[in-house]
Amino acid sequence: MTAISSTAKKTRPAKAASDTAKQEYFVGVDMGGTKILSGVFNSRLKCLGRSKMSTKAERGPEAVVERIARCVQDAVDECDLSLKQIKAVGIGSPGSVDSETGKVMFAGNLGWKDVALKKMLETQLGLPVFIENDCNICTLGVHEVELSGKPRDMVGIFLGTGIGGGLIIDGKLHTGFNRMAGEVGHMVMEINGPRCTCGNRGCWETLSSRTALFRVIQQAVKNGQKTVLTSMLGEELQDLRSGDLRKAIKQGDKFVAHVVEEAAFYTGVGVANLINLLSPEVVVLGGGLMDALENEMMPVVVKIAREQSFPGADKGVRIIPSRLGDDAGITGGAVLARRETA
Amino acid sequence: MTAISSTAKKTRPAKAASDTAKQEYFVGVDMGGTKILSGVFNSRLKCLGRSKMSTKAERGPEAVVERIARCVQDAVDECDLSLKQIKAVGIGSPGSVDSETGKVMFAGNLGWKDVALKKMLETQLGLPVFIENDCNICTLGVHEVELSGKPRDMVGIFLGTGIGGGLIIDGKLHTGFNRMAGEVGHMVMEINGPRCTCGNRGCWETLSSRTALFRVIQQAVKNGQKTVLTSMLGEELQDLRSGDLRKAIKQGDKFVAHVVEEAAFYTGVGVANLINLLSPEVVVLGGGLMDALENEMMPVVVKIAREQSFPGADKGVRIIPSRLGDDAGITGGAVLARRETA
Repeated sequence: MTAISSTAKKTRPAKAASDTAKQEYFVGVDMGGTKILSGVFNSRLKCLGRSKMSTKAERGPEAVVERIARCVQDAVDECDLSLKQIKAVGIGSPGSVDSETGKVMFAGNLGWKDVALKKMLETQLGLPVFIENDCNICTLGVHEVELSGKPRDMVGIFLGTGIGGGLIIDGKLHTGFNRMAGEVGHMVMEINGPRCTCGNRGCWETLSSRTALFRVIQQAVKNGQKTVLTSMLGEELQDLRSGDLRKAIKQGDKFVAHVVEEAAFYTGVGVANLINLLSPEVVVLGGGLMDALENEMMPVVVKIAREQSFPGADKGVRIIPSRLGDDAGITGGAVLARRETA
Repeated sequence: MTAISSTAKKTRPAKAASDTAKQEYFVGVDMGGTKILSGVFNSRLKCLGRSKMSTKAERGPEAVVERIARCVQDAVDECDLSLKQIKAVGIGSPGSVDSETGKVMFAGNLGWKDVALKKMLETQLGLPVFIENDCNICTLGVHEVELSGKPRDMVGIFLGTGIGGGLIIDGKLHTGFNRMAGEVGHMVMEINGPRCTCGNRGCWETLSSRTALFRVIQQAVKNGQKTVLTSMLGEELQDLRSGDLRKAIKQGDKFVAHVVEEAAFYTGVGVANLINLLSPEVVVLGGGLMDALENEMMPVVVKIAREQSFPGADKGVRIIPSRLGDDAGITGGAVLARRETA
């Protein structure tokens, strides 16, 4: 667990305060396995201030929900606002989320099962709370704020520890019959490929996630592969991070460059599969791994996606990196909160 | 090119005639590489009569459109109706179809490029004509008639010479930005797999289509594999058809059973991928190969799809064979014609 101290950062408190009378405010929360981010947004979805806190998932759901509430209050306070001025809170959770019942049904990296997140947080904050899967919420944020809500059909793909996604279809977030649509990371692309945490083999996640990259690199180093990463971090590659890969490539490490290129190749194939299936107008790629290795990965992703998509299917389709970075989740949370109380 | 004589079959002419005054009629057409099917439907989408004709694609688009018109007229005449009593015609074409402009942009097995099918057929028939991709139209037919239009989210998968599909999302046919959504057959599932006609490797189509099965069988026979198919059809396996595989399996041919089971396994993985991506309520499998080998393939498809879909994602999801068989296309054509003139 990374130790993250509680920090709050205000962006434009003066303006926020002066807008109080006429403005409506929303809070977006991004709850991850290691950290909680919250952000206060005005009704035009401009972020006025943020707060960050470690999740401390090991303390159990009740403690985590208390920390979320504290993180929300910190961000609100930092903007010189009070909870009474917040109209609603939107929160993204990892795992399978039932937005209707407000429950996190299952979230492996939090150790959660059937947690009534909406209800618990509403009790803590005295505010309406809406929940959704984290990648769905990031997709909402990218679609509404980064792309001004324009594309009728969009796919969001987020490369981090795993690979998640979200689908905008006909202008709306598509969650489907079991509200679990968008699990792009478990699309099997290499049927005899590496074993995935889900039990299958060759899921996209086993080929292009940070975990996949680290697995390949660590295995190769064990087998005697030379890389500048070991001189940076030691033979055990302790605390290897996505940014280290970028640094290694910049230092001319051909091995790391090749591993990253291979992951980008697989991601290109995944994007082509999604273009063939869904005919989106825009495919947006984000997530920590993509943010760190955008320059190295995106050219390969775009090239392969165009080469491998069905003739004509990629015509006019934009394949772009997200510019929201870490803010995608809190932005999407605010979009959800605003939408649900409109 | 299979020689198919023009045949028309009436189902209930008396009833059709007596309903003339109050009824509206629609014609659905399924244009394939080898044959054209047409069917007359009443406004409750009951099929009143059918007609069949060979396509003779080698004669070029104009001749084919004339044959389509004749096939439509035959079916209408067989129902003791006249063209004047038909409200509209809906037609499914292979390849990429722009339903907006009414053009078949590209259809490899017809040798068509940029054919103004809608306009040409409207001129021939003096009736409004609506066109759509053949698998999309089959999906429409299955959804509206076989499933009474109930599922909000459905995937149709059609296994034949290739593999095609169609998506119903939020109750509507999803065609997407380039109107090409639903190309399930070109989802790459084995990145180093067999080369596909599209240029990629390991598309679903290269693993589970009739073409894929025949390729595997013919290659194995060349390499000395024993099978009852050679005693049925000769060493060259001339005129091998899907039904022959069923017969071979019934005669205890373990080799053919294994090849079919493998294709069903891949189809199960493909279905799981689609469940994970789209969270449909119903997945329907049809097409000539599935119709012929339903008993052999479906149990494997369902088992693998459930095993491989993300935990919880297949809960309550129905994975079923279509009962419409060859009628899926004409039925969907009538659905399209009715929808567009409603």
